[in-house]
Amino acid sequence: LKVAAGRKRVTGEGASTVLRSLDEVLQKAKQFPTRRVAVAVAEERSVLEALAAADRERLAYPILVGDRAKIEALCAEVGLAPDRCQIQHQPSDVKAAQDAAVLVRCGQADLLMKGHLHSDDFLRAVLDKETGLRMGVLMSHVFILELREENRLVFLTDCAMNVAPDLVQKAQIVLNAVYLAHLFGYAKPTVAVLAAVELVNPGMPATVEAAVLAKMSERRQFPDCIIDGPFALDNAVSLAAAQTKGLGGPVAGRADILLVPDIEAGNILAKSFAHLAKGRLVGVVVGARAPIILTSRADSAEAKMLSIATASLMCSLERTQRLKIGKVHY
Amino acid sequence: LKVAAGRKRVTGEGASTVLRSLDEVLQKAKQFPTRRVAVAVAEERSVLEALAAADRERLAYPILVGDRAKIEALCAEVGLAPDRCQIQHQPSDVKAAQDAAVLVRCGQADLLMKGHLHSDDFLRAVLDKETGLRMGVLMSHVFILELREENRLVFLTDCAMNVAPDLVQKAQIVLNAVYLAHLFGYAKPTVAVLAAVELVNPGMPATVEAAVLAKMSERRQFPDCIIDGPFALDNAVSLAAAQTKGLGGPVAGRADILLVPDIEAGNILAKSFAHLAKGRLVGVVVGARAPIILTSRADSAEAKMLSIATASLMCSLERTQRLKIGKVHY
Repeated sequence: LKVAAGRKRVTGEGASTVLRSLDEVLQKAKQFPTRRVAVAVAEERSVLEALAAADRERLAYPILVGDRAKIEALCAEVGLAPDRCQIQHQPSDVKAAQDAAVLVRCGQADLLMKGHLHSDDFLRAVLDKETGLRMGVLMSHVFILELREENRLVFLTDCAMNVAPDLVQKAQIVLNAVYLAHLFGYAKPTVAVLAAVELVNPGMPATVEAAVLAKMSERRQFPDCIIDGPFALDNAVSLAAAQTKGLGGPVAGRADILLVPDIEAGNILAKSFAHLAKGRLVGVVVGARAPIILTSRADSAEAKMLSIATASLMCSLERTQRLKIGKVHY
Repeated sequence: LKVAAGRKRVTGEGASTVLRSLDEVLQKAKQFPTRRVAVAVAEERSVLEALAAADRERLAYPILVGDRAKIEALCAEVGLAPDRCQIQHQPSDVKAAQDAAVLVRCGQADLLMKGHLHSDDFLRAVLDKETGLRMGVLMSHVFILELREENRLVFLTDCAMNVAPDLVQKAQIVLNAVYLAHLFGYAKPTVAVLAAVELVNPGMPATVEAAVLAKMSERRQFPDCIIDGPFALDNAVSLAAAQTKGLGGPVAGRADILLVPDIEAGNILAKSFAHLAKGRLVGVVVGARAPIILTSRADSAEAKMLSIATASLMCSLERTQRLKIGKVHY
């Protein structure tokens, strides 16, 4: 499959070329200063392994919040030296999550990462109005999938935070992903709203919301991207499949961003990509005061390290490009 | 990944070994008599190509209902000879769908296949109480995915017919898939109920329904299969991922049947398997008086031919094994 030709590049200070693979993300991240990562409940081997790898690449300086004795023992096992990190003792999981968020909120850390605690407890600390990382917009999760054969990245959202977003929330989820795509050099990303079919069917709400978002885009209510839908997945990512179905336009078959109907469809797609298609993907939360890394225990160590690289690069590009998350014009 | 050892085989007349690949399905189908396929609105090149391929394998004898002139022209193009099929002229799409269903209902055809008409119009003919193919149970669609590395098939349902099934409908969808799995030699299939997470969360109905179905299975309300859930996809198909999450039992990591939460999640998973994982899959409708083949225009000719082979084998095994679709014991 061919990638759409002639994509414009973001211009201005810190402008990036279009990042087309996770290796390019990693290489680019290494060109910027090391970022400080506050880790909530850091006593988790696979997280510390990823941090040790990120330290070797000079991507991240870990600030490990949690049970000091457990952390020290695991650091020794994974080869993260005491002078390459900082440990902040806090044996309570809930307080450790809060402390880690506060480190980011106060500017003592650049990134936040989830360690060995339930996602719900972690997100409660992130969303806390007093001590969390709210910025006034809905936070959402974005997976970045590497399509190797096509030499491009696809931004998939939201597969991990918002369970059953309504139309207003979906609009914000799109804008958060567009912001991330802009940072990574995709100047006017194409957004495919996914459903099970391409025809609008009043009995299938995902298709109705897709139609509404597409029309809003046509009315220029989303100035920084081009949205179309509903699409079945094949017609969003494969030009051949889109052509067979007679679907035209700039989005069909070459979407940069995929908006899923709900968390079930999204999570199943992300897992399918990792476990059945054996593809590489990374994840990051957008819409907070700083990038947040939420990895799953079943992720490979490489995937976790690449997620740290992605968040680190996102932080660096935010500081050089000074982009803002867009708003919908209602 | 290892496949569960010691799986029992179905015994009795026409008993099959466990079919582990689509090539095995094709070879097995060829051991039985050729089946007559009634095609609704047959004037569609890719459908006729698949039928020509199925004819070469002696899998199917096409009875083509639709516009005779268009069908004859396309048959000449794809190499389906006049003496290898039968044409029944009916220029109206709606009537052609009805006529094709009636051919099956009256025993003049063994299988029904969708041609060049909208799925809704096709299904209306299938579901018609007077002339359709209802049997008194909910009809559902099952995709059969070929996991080549693991040398096994996985039954994925329902990605194409039931939009947002409730608990009672999900139970029947499971039973329909179990019936198909039995026919294909999976004597007591394991069923994973998919969601976005493994923990039951009252805010995520897919996890709640999974918990209920799993408990019903534990109470032996589904005697012919073993159901567990909720599972994220990775923990249903990968033993390593299941072990990382500490999930045990006979289903985790080695599910034969995957029940998706709704049509969006299911369709996206099936499309991801075909287009991102480049896997082979076939689809068939279960719960009707005869197997029904619903292919998508974007499917490859090979996929369509394998779907005909699958339906043909299903028909043959139904006649030799005399299994019945199970019931839930409420």
